Amino acid sequence: MSDITTYKLAFIGLGTVSQGAIGYIRDQADLLRDQYGFALKVVALYTARRGSLYQPAGLDLDRVLAIGRNSLDQYPDDPNLKRGLSMAAIVDQTNADVIIEASPTNFDDAQPALGTIRTAMQAGKHVITANKGPLALAYAELKALAERQGVYFGYEGTVMGGTPALQFARLSLAGMTISGVRGIVNSTTNYILTQMEAGNDYAAALAAAQRLGFAETDPRGDVDGHDAAGKLTILANVLLGADLKPDDVQRSGISALTSADIDAARQSGERWKLIADAHRQPDGSVQAIVRAERLPVTDPLAGVAGVTNALSFETDLLGPLTIVGAGAGPQTGVAILSDLIDLHRSRH
Amino acid sequence: MSDITTYKLAFIGLGTVSQGAIGYIRDQADLLRDQYGFALKVVALYTARRGSLYQPAGLDLDRVLAIGRNSLDQYPDDPNLKRGLSMAAIVDQTNADVIIEASPTNFDDAQPALGTIRTAMQAGKHVITANKGPLALAYAELKALAERQGVYFGYEGTVMGGTPALQFARLSLAGMTISGVRGIVNSTTNYILTQMEAGNDYAAALAAAQRLGFAETDPRGDVDGHDAAGKLTILANVLLGADLKPDDVQRSGISALTSADIDAARQSGERWKLIADAHRQPDGSVQAIVRAERLPVTDPLAGVAGVTNALSFETDLLGPLTIVGAGAGPQTGVAILSDLIDLHRSRH
Repeated sequence: MSDITTYKLAFIGLGTVSQGAIGYIRDQADLLRDQYGFALKVVALYTARRGSLYQPAGLDLDRVLAIGRNSLDQYPDDPNLKRGLSMAAIVDQTNADVIIEASPTNFDDAQPALGTIRTAMQAGKHVITANKGPLALAYAELKALAERQGVYFGYEGTVMGGTPALQFARLSLAGMTISGVRGIVNSTTNYILTQMEAGNDYAAALAAAQRLGFAETDPRGDVDGHDAAGKLTILANVLLGADLKPDDVQRSGISALTSADIDAARQSGERWKLIADAHRQPDGSVQAIVRAERLPVTDPLAGVAGVTNALSFETDLLGPLTIVGAGAGPQTGVAILSDLIDLHRSRH
Repeated sequence: MSDITTYKLAFIGLGTVSQGAIGYIRDQADLLRDQYGFALKVVALYTARRGSLYQPAGLDLDRVLAIGRNSLDQYPDDPNLKRGLSMAAIVDQTNADVIIEASPTNFDDAQPALGTIRTAMQAGKHVITANKGPLALAYAELKALAERQGVYFGYEGTVMGGTPALQFARLSLAGMTISGVRGIVNSTTNYILTQMEAGNDYAAALAAAQRLGFAETDPRGDVDGHDAAGKLTILANVLLGADLKPDDVQRSGISALTSADIDAARQSGERWKLIADAHRQPDGSVQAIVRAERLPVTDPLAGVAGVTNALSFETDLLGPLTIVGAGAGPQTGVAILSDLIDLHRSRH
């Protein structure tokens, strides 16, 4: 006999983050059972263009991962497998108790993810998301809805990829008040700046980032600071109790930086970084700014190179505390695993 | 009516760390009640040379802090106040339910702190300590004793001062396996090295550290790496499941470093740091080394200056994660506050 709790998961979106998370869920199963006393089953997958799957007893994760970016039609038939359920049906008509929203971010209206999350919470399902749109545009509404419905709401993956920055602030900085956050939260621009310091000009550095998959074909979301501003909005609202929208962030990017700018900084013992900064002002409001800054090399953020992210929390009791770690990619799936452990801890 | 839990604390030792902790306990009382639902009372203080106090209803913390480094005889009389209780009586014959051991560290036999902690746990009291000796010499024994007795055992303050490095590893890195730790864990030597980079020779830098109270009159515990080796032993045993003693650490210090060494590193774009490193080996054992190393300035540890500490955790899922923060001083008292919050969370 076993008193192991099993959570049944439905993934909405099956991109890099979901595939990463499903791999970790498969690989860490023994650790989750032995160390934390729970188990996970992926019962449903929904994609907008590649079909959907529902298997009440749990899908075979090796087979899911083998499909990669192909159609879910490739998943083998079995008597209890259902195909082609709508997103609404995945939320409403399956046995899933946790909905994992990991569709692409949209900072304009956060849809369709925002609707999915609302529907899931209203149906009494726990929600975990790595999607920045709903957090940046509707954090206060979703937090209140989750509390009203008594469901868990996890969003660790929306900033700093897999690095557990939000859990660190909530759990490890307990007893302190955070008055500001400041960091490097966009991997693409940090990679480009690191390449420029190595002697490439902006165009060559951007092309390298695109070749390696760090930058989109249309790089403006990253290089103009939109992604950093969205993440900073989340940090300001979650950690500082602000009520900002991404448009409230004073924002500029790195596309105007030249090799001469990089050299001039180096000659002064400084480095250019795209810094996201939100601080509580004397009047109680929160000011949020994303801009390229020249940092002295002694600044803890100056040494953060490549696709690494870093975030400094300004605290009343300890001054600044900084966390540095992987910022993007499939490792963002680790944040979903962190949220699942946190969900289990919060219920037991 | 209130369902607030109140913990009654006895402090053993009333130096910098305890005074810091008592200040935070006083100043954060509203936050602890409103946000976490508990209250704290300091009912007893024991010092080896300045007397002891016991007031079952709780001591007046303003009056305790006003005494500073003077005799506890200065605390005003009141009908229920008892003076002069022995350490054993403080543990056995008071209403304290949490014993906070913060007497000076002794890496030889960890006494008298080790005896205090054993006695307290055997009496069914929770124990929180900032004393490195018992952790470095008897972690496995004390952990097992705490589990057997069903009491809480907190030791966040034994590494990285107030920075919650151990809680970060346990709570925020949940679901991951840590295979190594590497960091700057001694503030005194890091201050000396930073001063030498600013142009001082070793003797002048050490003298400055002594003037500012960062280094002892006999600096060998710091500059020869004993303090770092003790902390590394704790990290290896707590985080990597090792069973090391401080003598098992391969240890060297910084006292042989010259200004010429510092300059040579700078000319190669490198910096000297006293690095504490423990990693699991292919055969399952843990190798622990404290030594001065030349780091490239791109290393996340290279930019850690002055009395700041830093620790990188090598994880299976996310690679290295680094935490940087205040390493010493009265802020170590924050770690005691963190442990008290963790104690409350673990019971509710």
